[in-house]
Amino acid sequence: MVAKIIDGKAISEKMRAGLAKEVSNLVRHMPKPGLAVIVVGDDPASHVYVRSKAKQTIEVGMESFEYQLPASASEHQLLDLVATLNNDERVDGILVQLPLPHHINAEKVLRAIAPAKDVDGFHPLNVGLVATGSGGMVPCTPLGSMILIKSVRDNIAGLNAVIVGRSNIVGKPMAQLLLQESCTVTIAHSRTADLPAVVGAADILVAAVGRPEMVRGTWVKPGSVVIDVGINRVAAPDGKSKLVGDVAFGECLDRAAAITPVPGGVGPMTISCLLQNTLRAATARRA
Amino acid sequence: MVAKIIDGKAISEKMRAGLAKEVSNLVRHMPKPGLAVIVVGDDPASHVYVRSKAKQTIEVGMESFEYQLPASASEHQLLDLVATLNNDERVDGILVQLPLPHHINAEKVLRAIAPAKDVDGFHPLNVGLVATGSGGMVPCTPLGSMILIKSVRDNIAGLNAVIVGRSNIVGKPMAQLLLQESCTVTIAHSRTADLPAVVGAADILVAAVGRPEMVRGTWVKPGSVVIDVGINRVAAPDGKSKLVGDVAFGECLDRAAAITPVPGGVGPMTISCLLQNTLRAATARRA
Repeated sequence: MVAKIIDGKAISEKMRAGLAKEVSNLVRHMPKPGLAVIVVGDDPASHVYVRSKAKQTIEVGMESFEYQLPASASEHQLLDLVATLNNDERVDGILVQLPLPHHINAEKVLRAIAPAKDVDGFHPLNVGLVATGSGGMVPCTPLGSMILIKSVRDNIAGLNAVIVGRSNIVGKPMAQLLLQESCTVTIAHSRTADLPAVVGAADILVAAVGRPEMVRGTWVKPGSVVIDVGINRVAAPDGKSKLVGDVAFGECLDRAAAITPVPGGVGPMTISCLLQNTLRAATARRA
Repeated sequence: MVAKIIDGKAISEKMRAGLAKEVSNLVRHMPKPGLAVIVVGDDPASHVYVRSKAKQTIEVGMESFEYQLPASASEHQLLDLVATLNNDERVDGILVQLPLPHHINAEKVLRAIAPAKDVDGFHPLNVGLVATGSGGMVPCTPLGSMILIKSVRDNIAGLNAVIVGRSNIVGKPMAQLLLQESCTVTIAHSRTADLPAVVGAADILVAAVGRPEMVRGTWVKPGSVVIDVGINRVAAPDGKSKLVGDVAFGECLDRAAAITPVPGGVGPMTISCLLQNTLRAATARRA
């Protein structure tokens, strides 16, 4: 078997094209949806992400509002800005770029975002709504991962899904989504006794641990779907660096039925899902 | 091996004795914690539960407020009562006994309870806080089940935990608690392909499906801990009826290391955990 390589870049582009069409229909009878992104400090990676988000936001026809605060900004200042955006009619989605400087309590800031504008889906109210299957905003990375799974498997009910990694941002919400699709769901992590055996039972594997190529090809169940959420920068043979996932991609190609590459798999889906959440927030709030 | 039978009745009594002592210390410098229970209609089982809750509430030294609404009560009336209790200084915990009559939207009512007084832990905000490991009120049945597990296994990190049943009230929050204890957690359910095999891998098994004796003794891993949340009334050989769990108890006695009986296992823990949540809510709110 040669694994199908799931092209997250192409799928996310198609998704944004669909969103652009929806937005162009919507703006006939309502204002443009607006996404506000706040970045604090001068972490270069954060600024790259934020620019990329702003660009794609505008490309699908939405308003982008960008707020840059200095690294010295106080928690109080940031909370003030969030409160202002919560009440700003033009703003449908609010995203605070992480990580925040250490003197700011990130949890407190994320909880200050109005749940209806929490397009990252990190507010505990949205976490609870998603967990109970009662709506709520779904975090972008699990949402994008599920779209990629669905691109190769229409009906996943009854399949064994294994998630490696139990983060609040990926692992746990991914488990909820797979459970809603009636998978038998296992969450494994650093304390798991026999990880290769657990991974070996997975019809659907989602790796989200942030450890370069930790999941080996020999662990993977033949015929499975492998979603690699990890993005790790490692030294390349040429002395430069390269990006690899949490899965040893090359080793899986003759075992998995389908696998996401890194880069170009889950990564590109995230912003598209963010824009989809923003559109959803806009239509819900303005309905 | 002969399984240790986990005595939920004894453990819950000991727990209430501890709570009574805590309450008697607390009331020296604050008012008595108060639990308000609302029951709508005249379902006999609900009234039995509610009387039992009131009795035990008073026994540990707390105030019990009981509200009985007729089956004909409107959703609006119920929401009004919840709002009144939300603002009542004497009330630390509010519990709406389920099921509610069909003309009342239970989800809407449960969301109307102030999260700080939501001692059942059903409000999505508490669900989200528990799911992210950020505090929140833990639902009583999973909390009680975890206490029973801990009564026989001190450290469960790295063990395989399997939950059969994916309800919002038991299965899903139970998964979060076991994950917090660093178990490898699997959630199985009616769509699971090979349930006996999944159950067979469980060092800790929590059955919460509501199907009498569905989990057979031959499925159970030798040496495992079996927590049976099910309470099913079935016909007994003498023509009367009896209560059985979701696990074929007798078949497990020579395989499991420890098992909860039905009745007398998880059941009695629920009210004790409710009282513990009420005490926790009181100290948090009045701190």
